[in-house]
Amino acid sequence: MDTLIGAYADTPSQPQFKRLAVLGVGLLGGSFALAAKHAGLAQEVVGYSKSPSTINAAKAAGVIDHGADSALHAATGADLVLLAVPVSAIGPLLKQIRIGLSQHALVMDVGSTKSDVVAAAQECLGERSRQFVPCHPIAGGEHSGVHYARSALFDGRRVVITPMENNPDRFVEVATQIWEAVGAVVSIMEPKEHDAAFAAVSHLPHLVAFAYVYAMTRQPKGSGYLQLAGPGFRDFTRIAASDPTMWRDIFQANGSEVLQQLQLFKQAIAGFEAQMRQGNWTVLESLIRQASQSRKDWASPSPADDIA
Amino acid sequence: MDTLIGAYADTPSQPQFKRLAVLGVGLLGGSFALAAKHAGLAQEVVGYSKSPSTINAAKAAGVIDHGADSALHAATGADLVLLAVPVSAIGPLLKQIRIGLSQHALVMDVGSTKSDVVAAAQECLGERSRQFVPCHPIAGGEHSGVHYARSALFDGRRVVITPMENNPDRFVEVATQIWEAVGAVVSIMEPKEHDAAFAAVSHLPHLVAFAYVYAMTRQPKGSGYLQLAGPGFRDFTRIAASDPTMWRDIFQANGSEVLQQLQLFKQAIAGFEAQMRQGNWTVLESLIRQASQSRKDWASPSPADDIA
Repeated sequence: MDTLIGAYADTPSQPQFKRLAVLGVGLLGGSFALAAKHAGLAQEVVGYSKSPSTINAAKAAGVIDHGADSALHAATGADLVLLAVPVSAIGPLLKQIRIGLSQHALVMDVGSTKSDVVAAAQECLGERSRQFVPCHPIAGGEHSGVHYARSALFDGRRVVITPMENNPDRFVEVATQIWEAVGAVVSIMEPKEHDAAFAAVSHLPHLVAFAYVYAMTRQPKGSGYLQLAGPGFRDFTRIAASDPTMWRDIFQANGSEVLQQLQLFKQAIAGFEAQMRQGNWTVLESLIRQASQSRKDWASPSPADDIA
Repeated sequence: MDTLIGAYADTPSQPQFKRLAVLGVGLLGGSFALAAKHAGLAQEVVGYSKSPSTINAAKAAGVIDHGADSALHAATGADLVLLAVPVSAIGPLLKQIRIGLSQHALVMDVGSTKSDVVAAAQECLGERSRQFVPCHPIAGGEHSGVHYARSALFDGRRVVITPMENNPDRFVEVATQIWEAVGAVVSIMEPKEHDAAFAAVSHLPHLVAFAYVYAMTRQPKGSGYLQLAGPGFRDFTRIAASDPTMWRDIFQANGSEVLQQLQLFKQAIAGFEAQMRQGNWTVLESLIRQASQSRKDWASPSPADDIA
C-alpha cells in the first residue's frame, strides 16, 4: 500500500498540498488556514462550518478561498483535512467525510483531549484511521471565532501529536513537518499521558477559574466587588472567559483525569485552610513559599503577549 | 489645633513636601519615591529599610536621596511618611517613629488589608492616629523588590483610602491629592467593606493560585507536566509567584473574610464536581456559560501590560 502522501512526496522538508479542507472555521481552524497559506503549505483552502455566516465571514476576511455546503463536500478531493471542532464533534464529522476521503489524504484534528479522539477515530474511520493523526496545538485562548484568526497563532507554540497505533510513520512525519512549517514545536506522546498532563496544567485551572468566577459574581455584593478587581484578578480569571461548549466537551472527554487532579487540589486547599483556621502562620508561609518558588522556577515557554 | 499640613497648605491641588520618608524601600515604596519626585511632590526622599543592602541599592538606583539608619531617624523631620512594609510590621513601625513625628506630618501606608491597619494605628499612635491615613494602592505584582520600582507604577491604578474616624478632612484630601498626583484614581471606603471586597477579588485568588501550584508541582509527575504548561497556566498562576511573607500577613490579617470567600468557592467547586460525576453535561455547560459571560462582561480597569 502506498504510504506516501500525494503531492508532497518529493518535498520531504516542506510538504505541499493542493487542497486543504478546514472543517470548523473558528480561531484555530481559521488561523491554521491563514498559516498554511502563508507558509506555502496549501494552494487552495476550502472551509466548512455548520453556520453559513461563519463561512461568509471567513471568505470575506480572506481566511478561506471557498466555502463548502457540507463537510463531505469540503473534504472530498482534499489532500489535507483539518478538523477544528469541539472534541465531541470529531467522531460524527469523521463519519460524514469518510466516504469522500482520498486514500492519500492526511487528516488531523486540534482537540484538547486525545484518548477520546483516538477512540472516536478508531470507531468512525476503522482501518482508514491510519490516515488520521491526532494533534493538539497548545494555542487558542479565551477569544474564540474566526474574527480572531491570525497566521502567527502557532508560532513558537507546542503541538502534541499522539499517533494512532496504525499510523504509518510517514503520516506522523508529514504532520510534524506541517506544524513545524507554521512555526510550532512538536512533541510526540501517548494519548493517555497527554490527557493526564493536560488535566493537570490546563483542564483543572479552567475548572477552578470557572468555579471561582461563578462563586465570586453570584454573591450578593459580587458586582460591587468586581469594580475593585485589578490585574491579578484579570490574569487569574482570563481563562474563565473561554468557550463554554468547548470546555464542557473537554471536561466530559477527560473527566476521570480532571477529577483526579481536582482531588489533589482540594487536598491542598484543605491543607491551606487548616493552617489558617489553626493560626499556624509559619506553616502557612512555608506552603506559600514552596508554591511561590515553584512558580518562579517555571520558565514560561511562550511569549508574554500570546494567549492560550 | 492646626489641621493644615505644613509646606503645601497654599497649594491645594498639588501638595508639596520638603521631606518624604519612605519606610520599606521595596517595589511599592521605591515606586512611590520615584513617582513623588517625578510629580514634584517631594524635594528630598529619605529611605529606611531593615536591610542595609536594600538602602544601598535604592540609593545607587536613584530611588532615594539618602538612607537612614533607623525608621525613627528617617521619619523625624519628614512632612510626609509612607509605610511600605508588610501589614504586620505597620504597628511596630508606627511605635518606633511616633516620638519623632512632626505634628504636621501626614503618614500613609500601602497595606493590602485595612481593618487591622486601622486598629494598629489606633493602638500604636493613639490620638496621633489622626495624622495617619490608611491607603491601599492596587498595584504591585509578583515581582517584589526595589529593583522593579518605577515611577509609573501607580499610573491609572486605583488607590482605596479607608479614613480613620479621627482623620481631619484635610488630611484625607491631601492624601487623595498625593495619589492623584502620581496618576492614581482614589476611592474612599470603610475598612471593613474594603477587606470584604479584596478578600473576594484578590486574597482568595491568591490562596487558590498558591494551593493549585502547590498541588500541581508536588505530584510525582508534576515537573514533567510543567514542561507542557502554556499561556493559560502562565496567567492563571502568575499571582502564585507573589511574596510569601506579604501574603501570609494578608491571610492572617484578613482571615475571616478570606475563609468566608473560600466557603463560597468550595461550594461552587463542589457543584461543578457533582455535575461532572453525575454526567450532567448540560447543567455543567450552563454553569460554565454563566462564569464565562460574567468574565467577558467585566471590563478590566487596567492596561494589559501592567501587573498587580
